[in-house]
Amino acid sequence: MRQLCKGNVAVVKGAILAGCRAYYGYPITPASEIAEAAALYFPQVGGTFLQAESEVAAINMVYGAAAAGLRVMSASSGPGLSLMQEGMSYLAGAELPCVIVDIMRGGPGLGNIAPEQSDYFAMVKGGGHGNYRNLVLAPASVQEMADLTMLAFELADKYRNPVVILADGFVGQMMEPLELEDIEAQLPEKPWAVKGTPETRANLVTSIYLETDEMEAYQRQMEAKYIRAKEVEQRYELCHTDDAEVLLVGYGIISRVLLSTVEALRKDGVKAGLFRPITLWPFPAKALVEAASRVEKVLVVELSNGQMVEDVRLSLNGKVPVDFYGRVGGNGPSVQELKQQVFSLMEMAV
Amino acid sequence: MRQLCKGNVAVVKGAILAGCRAYYGYPITPASEIAEAAALYFPQVGGTFLQAESEVAAINMVYGAAAAGLRVMSASSGPGLSLMQEGMSYLAGAELPCVIVDIMRGGPGLGNIAPEQSDYFAMVKGGGHGNYRNLVLAPASVQEMADLTMLAFELADKYRNPVVILADGFVGQMMEPLELEDIEAQLPEKPWAVKGTPETRANLVTSIYLETDEMEAYQRQMEAKYIRAKEVEQRYELCHTDDAEVLLVGYGIISRVLLSTVEALRKDGVKAGLFRPITLWPFPAKALVEAASRVEKVLVVELSNGQMVEDVRLSLNGKVPVDFYGRVGGNGPSVQELKQQVFSLMEMAV
Amino acid sequence: MRQLCKGNVAVVKGAILAGCRAYYGYPITPASEIAEAAALYFPQVGGTFLQAESEVAAINMVYGAAAAGLRVMSASSGPGLSLMQEGMSYLAGAELPCVIVDIMRGGPGLGNIAPEQSDYFAMVKGGGHGNYRNLVLAPASVQEMADLTMLAFELADKYRNPVVILADGFVGQMMEPLELEDIEAQLPEKPWAVKGTPETRANLVTSIYLETDEMEAYQRQMEAKYIRAKEVEQRYELCHTDDAEVLLVGYGIISRVLLSTVEALRKDGVKAGLFRPITLWPFPAKALVEAASRVEKVLVVELSNGQMVEDVRLSLNGKVPVDFYGRVGGNGPSVQELKQQVFSLMEMAV
Amino acid sequence: MRQLCKGNVAVVKGAILAGCRAYYGYPITPASEIAEAAALYFPQVGGTFLQAESEVAAINMVYGAAAAGLRVMSASSGPGLSLMQEGMSYLAGAELPCVIVDIMRGGPGLGNIAPEQSDYFAMVKGGGHGNYRNLVLAPASVQEMADLTMLAFELADKYRNPVVILADGFVGQMMEPLELEDIEAQLPEKPWAVKGTPETRANLVTSIYLETDEMEAYQRQMEAKYIRAKEVEQRYELCHTDDAEVLLVGYGIISRVLLSTVEALRKDGVKAGLFRPITLWPFPAKALVEAASRVEKVLVVELSNGQMVEDVRLSLNGKVPVDFYGRVGGNGPSVQELKQQVFSLMEMAV
Repeated sequence: MRQLCKGNVAVVKGAILAGCRAYYGYPITPASEIAEAAALYFPQVGGTFLQAESEVAAINMVYGAAAAGLRVMSASSGPGLSLMQEGMSYLAGAELPCVIVDIMRGGPGLGNIAPEQSDYFAMVKGGGHGNYRNLVLAPASVQEMADLTMLAFELADKYRNPVVILADGFVGQMMEPLELEDIEAQLPEKPWAVKGTPETRANLVTSIYLETDEMEAYQRQMEAKYIRAKEVEQRYELCHTDDAEVLLVGYGIISRVLLSTVEALRKDGVKAGLFRPITLWPFPAKALVEAASRVEKVLVVELSNGQMVEDVRLSLNGKVPVDFYGRVGGNGPSVQELKQQVFSLMEMAV
Repeated sequence: MRQLCKGNVAVVKGAILAGCRAYYGYPITPASEIAEAAALYFPQVGGTFLQAESEVAAINMVYGAAAAGLRVMSASSGPGLSLMQEGMSYLAGAELPCVIVDIMRGGPGLGNIAPEQSDYFAMVKGGGHGNYRNLVLAPASVQEMADLTMLAFELADKYRNPVVILADGFVGQMMEPLELEDIEAQLPEKPWAVKGTPETRANLVTSIYLETDEMEAYQRQMEAKYIRAKEVEQRYELCHTDDAEVLLVGYGIISRVLLSTVEALRKDGVKAGLFRPITLWPFPAKALVEAASRVEKVLVVELSNGQMVEDVRLSLNGKVPVDFYGRVGGNGPSVQELKQQVFSLMEMAV
Repeated sequence: MRQLCKGNVAVVKGAILAGCRAYYGYPITPASEIAEAAALYFPQVGGTFLQAESEVAAINMVYGAAAAGLRVMSASSGPGLSLMQEGMSYLAGAELPCVIVDIMRGGPGLGNIAPEQSDYFAMVKGGGHGNYRNLVLAPASVQEMADLTMLAFELADKYRNPVVILADGFVGQMMEPLELEDIEAQLPEKPWAVKGTPETRANLVTSIYLETDEMEAYQRQMEAKYIRAKEVEQRYELCHTDDAEVLLVGYGIISRVLLSTVEALRKDGVKAGLFRPITLWPFPAKALVEAASRVEKVLVVELSNGQMVEDVRLSLNGKVPVDFYGRVGGNGPSVQELKQQVFSLMEMAV
Repeated sequence: MRQLCKGNVAVVKGAILAGCRAYYGYPITPASEIAEAAALYFPQVGGTFLQAESEVAAINMVYGAAAAGLRVMSASSGPGLSLMQEGMSYLAGAELPCVIVDIMRGGPGLGNIAPEQSDYFAMVKGGGHGNYRNLVLAPASVQEMADLTMLAFELADKYRNPVVILADGFVGQMMEPLELEDIEAQLPEKPWAVKGTPETRANLVTSIYLETDEMEAYQRQMEAKYIRAKEVEQRYELCHTDDAEVLLVGYGIISRVLLSTVEALRKDGVKAGLFRPITLWPFPAKALVEAASRVEKVLVVELSNGQMVEDVRLSLNGKVPVDFYGRVGGNGPSVQELKQQVFSLMEMAV
């Protein structure tokens, strides 16, 4: 079925197609349409939508539903995600699958409601306490808002871990055509879940391990699955990288501006290429090393003051110079502005 | 005055000497002695100690007191710090000085109460939303628990920014001699504070900037001070680095095990050196590059599954191979265990 | 269907038969089996059970579901009910139907978990702010725990007002035969509800009336329905009152001890009768006046230090002497003890 | 010192003169000036003012400070007081002295911010759970807002029980001359308090009594002090009652309208008198019985739909007919309106 759809609404449609039937959250601009659409659509499929007292309450309800074996989600923006950091650490620590959507807004604190990409550290490095990882997916279109949400539920169950959809306010708010197949979600068995049934009475969902050896062994087991995920879940998109001399790297909405920039640069005779990470964790390091192997320069562009650039540098480990250009506060770079950055980087006159 | 003192208590003594007169928090092992000592000592100097309803309440009380111009602090461990992430982003976003102590415990979620160093990402990269930084200090002794707390209040006021004391449970719980000078704290003027007086009525403490240009300009101004801090606030300790062939890097309690390891290795003829970051943010990259300039190998050791190692790699940018060894769950590496790691790294037989 | 059932479980069975499909609460002894049974049975009939963050959260979820037109309930014991007082005033003030169960425990504050009847004032006089009334039903058996719960939902919808099931811990905890008919609940139309549909978009559920005349008119309208309820909803049970010289008055579990006392007294030649209020609000004043019209003395017995006795005195208005006997803390009076009270009241030798 | 002062501010001045040094609250119209004045004046005398996260947090802070032996207070209006009902039951149950001010606003739920007297039941009968009583004082002037607040702290300590100042929004908001003597408060010893000192280490402040006999004995002990208070603390004001044929009864602002009505009626030849309860609990029943002993009719006037009238009826127990007239929503009765009520009550033509 093809339809015109808002990014935030596409998330909910994807979630429902993925078999998600429980939503707990608290509205916040620019993520509120997710709550609104969930309030509308979840009851229609026999699911639960609940606006909680606070984001702290919401994420702990997610914990409860996930422990009971449901596909469950929440969504918010920066301040709300910060309030969820304790709960997300608990979810990861108890190996509970769930999907959390962050439609990033501007600034630390209250900031503003314009788009940014400045929650990268908080979501990708892990803003909660302890050794754990979120899997993080970065959609760049309305179609991907639905598709990656569906993928997120698959990955969440595969790795028994929270998966974050990290999108900027542009992708959340814009409308584009969306094509959805009406397929029946294949829900995995969850023999570990606590369902209030006699069979699951002995199951224990917990993150407490009082003995140090037990705690270390448990973290090693978590780490092992993170290593597995790093091997097989790196996702990315390449464009014009074969002969590129300068590689532009960006995710989400920025990748679309970078594609226009690449095309404009090529018209001007500059062999530019685009590398778009789709998974932010695991970061597509192997493909990036390969894509950057023949370029002279790498330019990372973000709607932040430089966060993902650290993962680009860690991946390339000094093999190629990595430069950064960022805009913040809701402002985005124009193609002209980025061309100028590339020219100056390549030491070319405009 | 020389005394035998617990690390957690030394934090409070340092805070009081620094002129801190307001403490808002909620107890959690292994940080509870900080609350206990604050409850005892703050009232004795005319200060306020308040055990709040939750960590969310506590950090917002810190915001209020900081906005009123007081030197103010809170302390907790991992789960509590996660709950404070929203408030910390607000404090940074409103440019409010405060000191937050994290006595790290084990594991994500509930975990256990044994020491770890796994909140590095959450505190150093910034677990809250938006572009902001915490300054982060890492004491390695009871003396430093007091001294770096005093420094923390200075830096907080100098940069109008939260400063985090990031200590593992070992440093928090152990007892050592502590030497304190009874000096009068020099409290800076804070003309920006909102004190409920006619003169400060027009002052506005906020993090909201609705216009994108205004929000971008404000973040550039915040960034400028972070760049200044990076230039002048990098702190570290070196040991036997002049002729080192292998450089061991660790902070907090680990740096003390590493020093023993270095000495043991040298007895075995291995020229090992120690680099101890004291500031985790800004990370002492310049000194590390210099210290690592003549070594063959770098080994980073943490009570985590590898967090600070990213900043070591970012600093060295591929110039020297960087290896990692970590223990978690409350377990710590022995000198023998670390020697073995170095031998294998240097491809030497034991 | 006849079954052996616990009082607390009977409440849930009655609620489900009455068409209630949403339960929000927080467990507390001696009401916890209600939450437990609701968690088990509500999902089986496609309903929602949610354990909220706190009683404050729970009662506000009840408000939301009631505003959406659902039959909805919560249950707790004293401390939880106290936390719900603000929400109950809001529910009454917005004319929202709901059923709230109070399984009374012992003492003010934390007290103990033994049965008492000391929340009478809080539930019957109205512990929340402002002019409003709860309708209050007092079951005295497991059968009535189910039957009066079904009635409660009818009355709640009829008067658009909260209805309280006020039961002591004895009635909540004891097991007795329960006979339930499997009837289809007749749910009334609620054209005033806000259902998220286009048709109900203009509906407004609120308790705010800024203008004084408007606020007064609204309260007069509420009062009018309370006067109506007082006329037609007084419920009670009489036993041996025709020729009684002394009238014993008690509700809930006490009424059963009083019945045994009446029978024992009659064996001793004392013409005693029993008056049992079933509705505590509206209080069955008319029937009590009638029943007391020929007696010499009235003795009110409660598991409190004297609360309902005020309504007995207000009803009789000095026409007959009203005496009181109470036990508290979880202790209940024996038949022998009560006989002794009556003897001494009637100035008879034992 | 004589000054022009608002009722809400007079409360704070009285509290400070009474030696109260801790205020925890949350602002709400029409009680906000109390918080505002407390924020201004408490720090000036070395006291603590704290705006809590919610009324639930505030009342539990009051519990903490009271347990530590401080004179402590809070203030709010209807909705806030409802949220404090659990805490107030805990304070009474743990026999902790404190002063709570309720500046009553209009309506149940959100209602409006105009004056009413409709929290009488919630404060006087006890809106929290369990057998306990608040002592309740009803000021009728700005001077009494200060004087009765001072008295409230005395009574709170004398009976180790919460004392409520129950005032309507008129008395809270109006300005009148206030005369205060600058006396040193005599603070009683509190050997039962928990002060964090070695001497008080064995003290236990609690309301939990698990054994039924222990719980019953404890409640009997509480009851004994309530009986004592009933004997010696009944306070009231009489006016023209000696030869009165009709007795008007009202508290707070209404008593002032009633006085004008009495004077107007006497000009018209109607022998009217005024009875003003100053303590609402204990209710001045003895004096009321005496004052009503020679009248033909009693008219109770309230800014409610009839709450205190129950205590008047309970006191007179049918000896004199008791009629009621009430206005709500922020509307108050005029003298003319009340004269008309009396005329119609006395079956006189206007």
